[in-house]
Amino acid sequence: MANIRHPIVDVHTHVYLPRYAAELRARTSAPRILNWTNGVKTEERLLILDGEPSGGRPIGPQYWDRDEKLEFMRRHGINISFVSSANPWLDFLPADRAQTLAHELNNNLEEYCATSPPAEGFSGLKTLYGFGLLPLVPDVEVSTIIQTIEHLKSLPHIRGIIMGTKGIGKGLDDNTLDPVWDAIQAARLVVFIHPHYGVDSTAFGENDNGHVLPLALGFPFETTIAVTRLILSGVLDRFPDLRLLLAHSGGALPQLSSRLASCIQHDPIVANRLKHDARYYLGQLYFDAVAYGSEELTFVSQTISRASTFKNGGGTVDPAVGSTRLLFGTDHPFFPPLEASQKWPSVESNLAAIRSMAGVDSKPEHQANILGLNALRLFDLHDQVYT
Amino acid sequence: MANIRHPIVDVHTHVYLPRYAAELRARTSAPRILNWTNGVKTEERLLILDGEPSGGRPIGPQYWDRDEKLEFMRRHGINISFVSSANPWLDFLPADRAQTLAHELNNNLEEYCATSPPAEGFSGLKTLYGFGLLPLVPDVEVSTIIQTIEHLKSLPHIRGIIMGTKGIGKGLDDNTLDPVWDAIQAARLVVFIHPHYGVDSTAFGENDNGHVLPLALGFPFETTIAVTRLILSGVLDRFPDLRLLLAHSGGALPQLSSRLASCIQHDPIVANRLKHDARYYLGQLYFDAVAYGSEELTFVSQTISRASTFKNGGGTVDPAVGSTRLLFGTDHPFFPPLEASQKWPSVESNLAAIRSMAGVDSKPEHQANILGLNALRLFDLHDQVYT
Repeated sequence: MANIRHPIVDVHTHVYLPRYAAELRARTSAPRILNWTNGVKTEERLLILDGEPSGGRPIGPQYWDRDEKLEFMRRHGINISFVSSANPWLDFLPADRAQTLAHELNNNLEEYCATSPPAEGFSGLKTLYGFGLLPLVPDVEVSTIIQTIEHLKSLPHIRGIIMGTKGIGKGLDDNTLDPVWDAIQAARLVVFIHPHYGVDSTAFGENDNGHVLPLALGFPFETTIAVTRLILSGVLDRFPDLRLLLAHSGGALPQLSSRLASCIQHDPIVANRLKHDARYYLGQLYFDAVAYGSEELTFVSQTISRASTFKNGGGTVDPAVGSTRLLFGTDHPFFPPLEASQKWPSVESNLAAIRSMAGVDSKPEHQANILGLNALRLFDLHDQVYT
Repeated sequence: MANIRHPIVDVHTHVYLPRYAAELRARTSAPRILNWTNGVKTEERLLILDGEPSGGRPIGPQYWDRDEKLEFMRRHGINISFVSSANPWLDFLPADRAQTLAHELNNNLEEYCATSPPAEGFSGLKTLYGFGLLPLVPDVEVSTIIQTIEHLKSLPHIRGIIMGTKGIGKGLDDNTLDPVWDAIQAARLVVFIHPHYGVDSTAFGENDNGHVLPLALGFPFETTIAVTRLILSGVLDRFPDLRLLLAHSGGALPQLSSRLASCIQHDPIVANRLKHDARYYLGQLYFDAVAYGSEELTFVSQTISRASTFKNGGGTVDPAVGSTRLLFGTDHPFFPPLEASQKWPSVESNLAAIRSMAGVDSKPEHQANILGLNALRLFDLHDQVYT
């Protein structure tokens, strides 16, 4: 296979900045960082939801220390990372505190990235870029959110925004947010939509299944609901240039997209509101390639490629387009190996899945896109390197 | 394309038997059938959940009249239907009433099928077969459920059981149900797992999206959770010959199956309990082909075909096996056309999706399997016709 020179770019990698970790340590209810002891050893644990199984998860320097991030990247051959705060962001804070902390954390993340080493072999690029935060909490003024977007525009290494699914309390399909989408679209900031809450955990029953059900199912369900609600509310019709990146390959949206289209066709209240068949909008979205299986990624790519055929007025399939909207990611520092190992199985399985996708396995240019070039294009950094 | 003589068999088609409709009419809270009037016209409406959007859906003879079912089948070229009670089955009844009604409804459904016309061109077969009901409600004795299974074994046209996801209150992964799975497996009855409750509707927000979100997302999420919980609890390890048919092509299970496997690998409490990688179990399941899109069905088929590679100890991909576990269905009488039409778009889109699946479009024997022969084999009727 011909070699194409391209960076490996990780678009799904998290950090708890020291300022954020300090905020969590000062809290007495979830989300919080607490000292956990079993009499023999004491460690810090992160509890992101009350009643979380196993009393939360061990947390350490890999969550905040930049050197650990860079070492992780070096080990896995990752040249550039777009780092985002991990959930639950500022969701739990009162509006004024959320506003202040967003401003400070965005400055901190800019510095975290701006002072990172250059990306070796990719002239003019840094190793680290970031997704900033907005104070998306109840009772915040929309004008305050817009101010934060203005601030983010002034931070050259912040190329996007990570957000959960609650908006300012009523979800992302709340019409009140239209000026926010408008400002984000104008600023060309990429929105990374990421889950935190899952679905009501009573659905998962009483058996002890550790974190499996909320993480494997609840997380992708939440993302699927959020982006579906965005589609149904017409946000993608009103802001067609908005660039939304979906965590975990869009959750279940691709597999349920034809069912969604069929249900809409049978419900005139929604059908009459939308410009296109629901499947069209999948071609407007970006998907991280964090699905752990090549058949999954191939399928996501196909639902992107077929999207144009569902444009109102008609269109044709372009089988190459799918691989232009999938982007490699790791979910670091989550899913660390259970046993000491040089490389993380969670990362290796995502890399292997990309490389063995049908139609991509034999096309180095498609692999180069998913592994790195799509990210450079999406974040407007491509022309800096490839002129 | 060579013609292969095969019936078209619908495995996902519902009935509210007259006795069941009468039970719903006598009720004053959901689920119920009520008279709805807007001053101009009066109609019966079915309210399956309290607070359902649009005050429920219009209901009429297509829900209970056998002639309407047969006319629907004739119009769409369906030769044989495996009819099941629609949700919420007996879930809302006290144990003694559930037991009595299960017995009576199972007898009624046997008669509904036994007296149906012969399937033209398929010697010895009827047009109608059925899925029976079990009294799966809280406080029922397991021995009572077993008795009902014994009764179903004596009804020659009842070939399976339809069930929701609650079991006897704690879900299908409740170990108390082990004797039930054992009896069902021994009786060779097919279990059709079907959603009713969706997920907590607060996740769907405040915008008026009709029935779209609960039906397009909530339903498949519920099925996905239920079958995942069955896998995690070891039911498929303990009862490897159990034949489970999943509604709506397994919901989101195929797309989330590699993520599920990865999460399990990172959670020893579950990993140590299971015999195989989570993806292995998809090859043990049956999926209706009610997904409305050919890429979706192709993908489901691939996750079935790859399953054997995830067997503990290893195995090889058999690309032909996927099409042996997908089965045509319609979801009649739900999703009727909004405007009078000879054929239902919901049915036509499922037929078209099957016929244009990659790898199936050019293979008449695979189409014949999905459209009908898989069902004859699954329900032990194949050898009656093809000897």
